[in-house]
Amino acid sequence: MAVRKTLSMAAIQISRIMRPDDANIAGNVHGGTILKMIEEAGGIISTRHCNSKSGERCFAALARVERTDFVSPMSIGEVAHVSAEITYTSKHSVEVQVNVMAENILTGAKKLTNRATLWYVALSLKNVDKILEVPPITYERKEQEEEGKKRYEAQKLERLETKHKVDNVILPIVNPEPHTVGYSQSSLIHLVGPSDCTPHGFAHGGVTMKAMDEVAGIVAARHCKTNIVTASVDAINFHRKIKKGSVLTVSGRLTFTSNKSMEIEVFVDVDPFVDDTQGRYRAASAFFTFVSLNKEAKPLPVPQVVLKSEEEKKRFEEGKGRYLQSKAKRQTEMNSLTQ
Amino acid sequence: MAVRKTLSMAAIQISRIMRPDDANIAGNVHGGTILKMIEEAGGIISTRHCNSKSGERCFAALARVERTDFVSPMSIGEVAHVSAEITYTSKHSVEVQVNVMAENILTGAKKLTNRATLWYVALSLKNVDKILEVPPITYERKEQEEEGKKRYEAQKLERLETKHKVDNVILPIVNPEPHTVGYSQSSLIHLVGPSDCTPHGFAHGGVTMKAMDEVAGIVAARHCKTNIVTASVDAINFHRKIKKGSVLTVSGRLTFTSNKSMEIEVFVDVDPFVDDTQGRYRAASAFFTFVSLNKEAKPLPVPQVVLKSEEEKKRFEEGKGRYLQSKAKRQTEMNSLTQ
Amino acid sequence: MAVRKTLSMAAIQISRIMRPDDANIAGNVHGGTILKMIEEAGGIISTRHCNSKSGERCFAALARVERTDFVSPMSIGEVAHVSAEITYTSKHSVEVQVNVMAENILTGAKKLTNRATLWYVALSLKNVDKILEVPPITYERKEQEEEGKKRYEAQKLERLETKHKVDNVILPIVNPEPHTVGYSQSSLIHLVGPSDCTPHGFAHGGVTMKAMDEVAGIVAARHCKTNIVTASVDAINFHRKIKKGSVLTVSGRLTFTSNKSMEIEVFVDVDPFVDDTQGRYRAASAFFTFVSLNKEAKPLPVPQVVLKSEEEKKRFEEGKGRYLQSKAKRQTEMNSLTQ
Repeated sequence: MAVRKTLSMAAIQISRIMRPDDANIAGNVHGGTILKMIEEAGGIISTRHCNSKSGERCFAALARVERTDFVSPMSIGEVAHVSAEITYTSKHSVEVQVNVMAENILTGAKKLTNRATLWYVALSLKNVDKILEVPPITYERKEQEEEGKKRYEAQKLERLETKHKVDNVILPIVNPEPHTVGYSQSSLIHLVGPSDCTPHGFAHGGVTMKAMDEVAGIVAARHCKTNIVTASVDAINFHRKIKKGSVLTVSGRLTFTSNKSMEIEVFVDVDPFVDDTQGRYRAASAFFTFVSLNKEAKPLPVPQVVLKSEEEKKRFEEGKGRYLQSKAKRQTEMNSLTQ
Repeated sequence: MAVRKTLSMAAIQISRIMRPDDANIAGNVHGGTILKMIEEAGGIISTRHCNSKSGERCFAALARVERTDFVSPMSIGEVAHVSAEITYTSKHSVEVQVNVMAENILTGAKKLTNRATLWYVALSLKNVDKILEVPPITYERKEQEEEGKKRYEAQKLERLETKHKVDNVILPIVNPEPHTVGYSQSSLIHLVGPSDCTPHGFAHGGVTMKAMDEVAGIVAARHCKTNIVTASVDAINFHRKIKKGSVLTVSGRLTFTSNKSMEIEVFVDVDPFVDDTQGRYRAASAFFTFVSLNKEAKPLPVPQVVLKSEEEKKRFEEGKGRYLQSKAKRQTEMNSLTQ
Repeated sequence: MAVRKTLSMAAIQISRIMRPDDANIAGNVHGGTILKMIEEAGGIISTRHCNSKSGERCFAALARVERTDFVSPMSIGEVAHVSAEITYTSKHSVEVQVNVMAENILTGAKKLTNRATLWYVALSLKNVDKILEVPPITYERKEQEEEGKKRYEAQKLERLETKHKVDNVILPIVNPEPHTVGYSQSSLIHLVGPSDCTPHGFAHGGVTMKAMDEVAGIVAARHCKTNIVTASVDAINFHRKIKKGSVLTVSGRLTFTSNKSMEIEVFVDVDPFVDDTQGRYRAASAFFTFVSLNKEAKPLPVPQVVLKSEEEKKRFEEGKGRYLQSKAKRQTEMNSLTQ
């Protein structure tokens, strides 16, 4: 009886068809898609287990993933079956073992693609800094508990070691001084996937604009650390098509601040991996203006940008020109409306 | 009659409820979400128009977006109504004007949030480098055509100007030499949104791992420019929780290459914007191993990494150690299986 | 032995945590999210079954969904377990029955939220217009086959009827007066992208149902301006496949209100841009019933619809007929349970 209860409590299976967005252009599913499903199954099963006795409600937070091998690639159209089982519990930790099978539903062929081991700790819902006790599981055989304990001790040691290492990391800070251009400067890379594209295999212009707005927003948030929203976007020209499978590098830097707005210049550069004959090229650039809002959606003052180089000062003056020009234009429009 | 046909052909409306992932933590919809919807409406209406006469099939590619102002912020739960209309056609271009209204379906209140103008060109489906002629639209009043022509001439001039500027951009290449560490080094930033999080407001571990795999994959693709897949991931430790609204910076660099594999070190650094008292911290790091596959899914040779600094040489030797150790471990497992 | 094979072949379970984007602002999961998961499970199990004998490879296309009731609402953070089983096969059709359970992993509470029945046909991968034969399943008891046959004959008749009925609808002009049909009527367009489709390039039936539920939900919210949830969906027939790259226009209008429910009729029209030879066609239509909930998830009164035209009055009477019929049916079922 005890064994049956343990198994039914301690097993879950997540299944899903692999879609074009889960894979690269060659049709191979990204390792990251599988890792995400593995952790979803692990999180469900360990949260459920940690709440299986009465007492304080908690959720399971991922503490460690053991080394994971991808035994064979998975393809679009195959069904990923991710099954998770709790295999060991210590006072404060849960060990989950996960198997991933790929099933070709046309041929019926199944193959193992992954095996993973994850460690979770139970955190109180009321106070997320409080670690709670984990209910023990029942083992079918004595050796299962002993082997689990060995794995637990080994990973504990390694966690302590890396914790020490991580705590002593000095992050490479490009420019430590707040409100400088270097401080808020940001960039992201984005792999142009199937859902980003027209049926003919070119990125929708809207996808590029969304990525540009995202980078500009992060620059603005880094600069003023408040709730920021897009106020306007300058004209953007798209001179070249962007092919599926390309990698976009989108970078943004602060150029100008007025009392209540920030101007951010954003560049989009493209690496067309699918097309060897072509090198990296600039696909678009634009100026985004952001404002900072308080809880009543009223504009807040924006910290003045600190300029460090002649280049930055030149760009600031150009930004000021654009700012004054668009302010004057708005004024003219207002006047013509109220006449 | 002509007018009616023009209007029914040349008008479209896209409506969608704004969801948590469309907005920042304060509930304001990202400008990028709206820009993406605007371009989707523009793309549909202009593709439809360009195919409205018999002849070669084509799709409309975005050439330019005019300056766009965000008049008022939109919130989660509001319905965005994006309506697009074709307002001018030249021989090869279509002008689309788009209005965005936000409707609060609980109060019935509607407000204008955006007005945008987009320019498209028609590209042949058979030969995407061939620009096709655009069928003319019918104007209700003569002045509409004249004003459209003025807008067309003005944007044409600006497009030419920026084309000249963009063609002369010299992209800042950190390290131009292929196969060096600097050449393939990559990083992305990711804003931790609601769908990345548990109901308690912390990022799922799987979200972090997916972003790590994405960066590692781009480093691998940049290094060997072929179809690459994840072969294994080292143990990863998660020492600190990541809050909703944080910004992840995920960076990857090549550390080691064997004949048929690449090792990439990936770091995750966190800016917890929502929490003023805490600075940037390192949340995780791991080694990913990628292999390169040909069309029959057989491993291809990997170009040897070119090392430039003492640091890179040291990391290569450490990577070689990990590679030999895991190779020996696999050998032992194989032997024990065949005994 | 035969039974065992049947069960292992003919059962699948899909599980997933409900995320913020799966729900409305009040935290209730959209009926459309659940319908989409139901259809994914149905599509996997029937495609797998239809390919279980050697011969021409095929995929299962959704032909019909029987009337579906949403027994109790699901919330963000709960785990949806969708289990599907093949319960009948005719020469060319597969019947799949699906159960949806919501599990609160904190309290361990589980509740049934849905039961659905779906019908699939097997289409050849080489020639998608060719319907293939379906391998028969093994029944444990003779009555199972007989009852299945009755269900098969009944739905076949209804499918033929609606195929005949599918006609043109002209949506009336927007009417600003609250609680009229024109006031709440809504439509959206959706471009069928790669991730909406099977690997063979046709939209998953679940994608269409999700869009239908979204429109019906907006109509319901506009009418009663409160937190609304899907209570049931009438049978839906899918007479034609929808190709990747098509544009769906999904429109909804209020047909009937009782004291505590609204009935909304939803149409799906398809523009197959990718296919020159075909004009716009109606792909599906269905009646959705919504209820309005207060914060304790108890039903609220619904404002009476204001009817303006003879057509609207006729549709109201028809809706009343469906309402009384389904109420009588529920009463009969209740009585048979308590006898």
